[in-house]
Amino acid sequence: MRITDLRLTPVAFYDPPLRNSWGTHAPEALRTIIQLDTDVGLTGISETYGGDGPLAELAHAREIIRGEDPYHLERLRLLIESPPTFAAIEVACLDVIGKAGDRPVCDLLGGAVRERVSFSAYLFFKYAGADPWGEVGDPQQMLDLARAWAEKFGFTTFKLKGGVLPPDEEIETVRLLREAFPTAQIRLDPNAIWSVETSLRVARQLRQYDVEYLEDPTADIAGMARVRAGVPDIPLATNMCVKSFADIPPAVQMGAVDVILGDHHFWGGLTGNKRLGQICETFRLGIGMHSNTHLGISLAAMLHSAATIPNLICACDTHYPWQSEDVISSPFRFEGGALPLPTGPGLGVSIDRDKLAALAERYERSRQRSRDDTAEQRRLDARYLPFRPRW
Amino acid sequence: MRITDLRLTPVAFYDPPLRNSWGTHAPEALRTIIQLDTDVGLTGISETYGGDGPLAELAHAREIIRGEDPYHLERLRLLIESPPTFAAIEVACLDVIGKAGDRPVCDLLGGAVRERVSFSAYLFFKYAGADPWGEVGDPQQMLDLARAWAEKFGFTTFKLKGGVLPPDEEIETVRLLREAFPTAQIRLDPNAIWSVETSLRVARQLRQYDVEYLEDPTADIAGMARVRAGVPDIPLATNMCVKSFADIPPAVQMGAVDVILGDHHFWGGLTGNKRLGQICETFRLGIGMHSNTHLGISLAAMLHSAATIPNLICACDTHYPWQSEDVISSPFRFEGGALPLPTGPGLGVSIDRDKLAALAERYERSRQRSRDDTAEQRRLDARYLPFRPRW
Repeated sequence: MRITDLRLTPVAFYDPPLRNSWGTHAPEALRTIIQLDTDVGLTGISETYGGDGPLAELAHAREIIRGEDPYHLERLRLLIESPPTFAAIEVACLDVIGKAGDRPVCDLLGGAVRERVSFSAYLFFKYAGADPWGEVGDPQQMLDLARAWAEKFGFTTFKLKGGVLPPDEEIETVRLLREAFPTAQIRLDPNAIWSVETSLRVARQLRQYDVEYLEDPTADIAGMARVRAGVPDIPLATNMCVKSFADIPPAVQMGAVDVILGDHHFWGGLTGNKRLGQICETFRLGIGMHSNTHLGISLAAMLHSAATIPNLICACDTHYPWQSEDVISSPFRFEGGALPLPTGPGLGVSIDRDKLAALAERYERSRQRSRDDTAEQRRLDARYLPFRPRW
Repeated sequence: MRITDLRLTPVAFYDPPLRNSWGTHAPEALRTIIQLDTDVGLTGISETYGGDGPLAELAHAREIIRGEDPYHLERLRLLIESPPTFAAIEVACLDVIGKAGDRPVCDLLGGAVRERVSFSAYLFFKYAGADPWGEVGDPQQMLDLARAWAEKFGFTTFKLKGGVLPPDEEIETVRLLREAFPTAQIRLDPNAIWSVETSLRVARQLRQYDVEYLEDPTADIAGMARVRAGVPDIPLATNMCVKSFADIPPAVQMGAVDVILGDHHFWGGLTGNKRLGQICETFRLGIGMHSNTHLGISLAAMLHSAATIPNLICACDTHYPWQSEDVISSPFRFEGGALPLPTGPGLGVSIDRDKLAALAERYERSRQRSRDDTAEQRRLDARYLPFRPRW
């Protein structure tokens, strides 16, 4: 089997005005849909970051991979170099290998050790938008959102995207969530917007609310190591200070983190995520799963990845419930806060041509060509500056 | 595809009286040949340690794996627990998966990044035996052996199994090898028989002979860390102080080693070796490949493993040239110190039924049921005691 072409379709779709420590999500999110053609008539699919930058890298990689065997992933990893670009191609290769052999992608990664994958409710403070969830601007509104999502999707783990309100209001939000959901897992992620001192103060306060972990309270391995030394009884998770394999040795040596959040899009694909899981197992670190805004193809890949990493025992993060549009034929629906592993060959999802064409047209019409939450925030408030740390 | 049975054939075959820091190889080496049957009519093969202990563990595993899918390796790894037992089954699973999909085993591990795998000449001091190589009892005889093997097999890397003669005679052996082979890689492995102080003294002497690495000069992570701190410019390799994933974090933290020698037989199979390679890459440790006495099925598995670990750039160790018998139809022949990667589906080697039957009969006739180099040495010299350290 040989790769004959790589078709790249940039897409844009509605995204609610979700808030984080950089600013606010723009009204359109961008992704790139990949179709990898082979000389046996089968096509593998995947999904990755959107916009001009990723597209240019993928266009370059297209020339590298033409004529290559999709099984030769180590070779492709060496030739492509960039982990996100390789990841996009690797997932499409695994999809086409699975289709060729009538096997789900997880079977190419050691097989599934779980048939359902649990997810967290990814709770954002937000402005009112064209979505059904209204404004979420204070602790009480966040509790209302959590209740609605618990009822609609069955989530029992709540990830609060913090770093938006002053720390005391986010602590109060955690207090309300804990009161309303006494047995839930609750995690808080202010995206590294706090100083070390503020992180320590918040962590001390959070002790009483039994948080699952505190994610990236402050920036960098050095900062995280100081927070962890100060509050060793609250696990620290990261997708910001450890985001490549080269970050792991210093993070281990400095004792910076307890849990690393994998993400196949930037850890070098499903094999990269698997490798991360194995390193975490070896060093007795926890592993979770990070999410950016994504559609159903990425979600399918995340499911296969989570199913085949035995030590991934905490709920995965996903932005998926925030999305009202998709490119796959049968969008996923959460039940009991979880999704079943797709059972078909490859990723087990297929592209709906009409949906893809519609979102591709939206991309053509969109003026946006990269993600910039700070720019969006500055459109709402011209005086806004992205202080880091802010508190 | 489902596993229907596991057929275990213990074999015994002639092994020369090779010497090491424990004693001497007995006249017969033991291995176990595995045939894993499936409901699609295909059989996967592998080879592992011999004797009663491994046989009993494999017989137990047989009951666990009946009815399982050979693709579900993570599940089997969890269920079987013991890395060597899992390894034996995992290789057979990969062989049968490769056969089913008409793909070489390396393609199930990310594909080959090299078509030929280089090996070292594994030089042992030895007694005269029923092999063609005579006695090798002093530095000059070792040089003669190295010259003969370089000519016959084309090796350009020499691994001297030390820990047999007093250290100064082994240093002299290295000196002779370096003089005769100015551009060769030379490694020395006394199997942890030296004290830390002796290791430091030998290492200081070896500086002038440009050794590739010094393997396990002394015992344990603590000892190796002291040697490495003392002679930081000579890389230390190990297959003795780091032999499971749990050993890696303390070895990294204490700075015990530079190179870890993989071996799929005890690192949890080809996926385990791969995982080790990835951890070594992440922590910027070197990776090589260790060998026990083995036949051609294990050698085929080693080739597939080495071909798909990009950072395995040093020559692999193998006992194979010492063996005059085999169970595979077409035994391997070294050329230029290397072997080509088998190209057929699966491992790319097949069992010769007559050869297997003959070596199985030898096992039945043999009184040996486990490997014990010390017992063999004590048969030659009743006063022999396995001092550790000896020097």
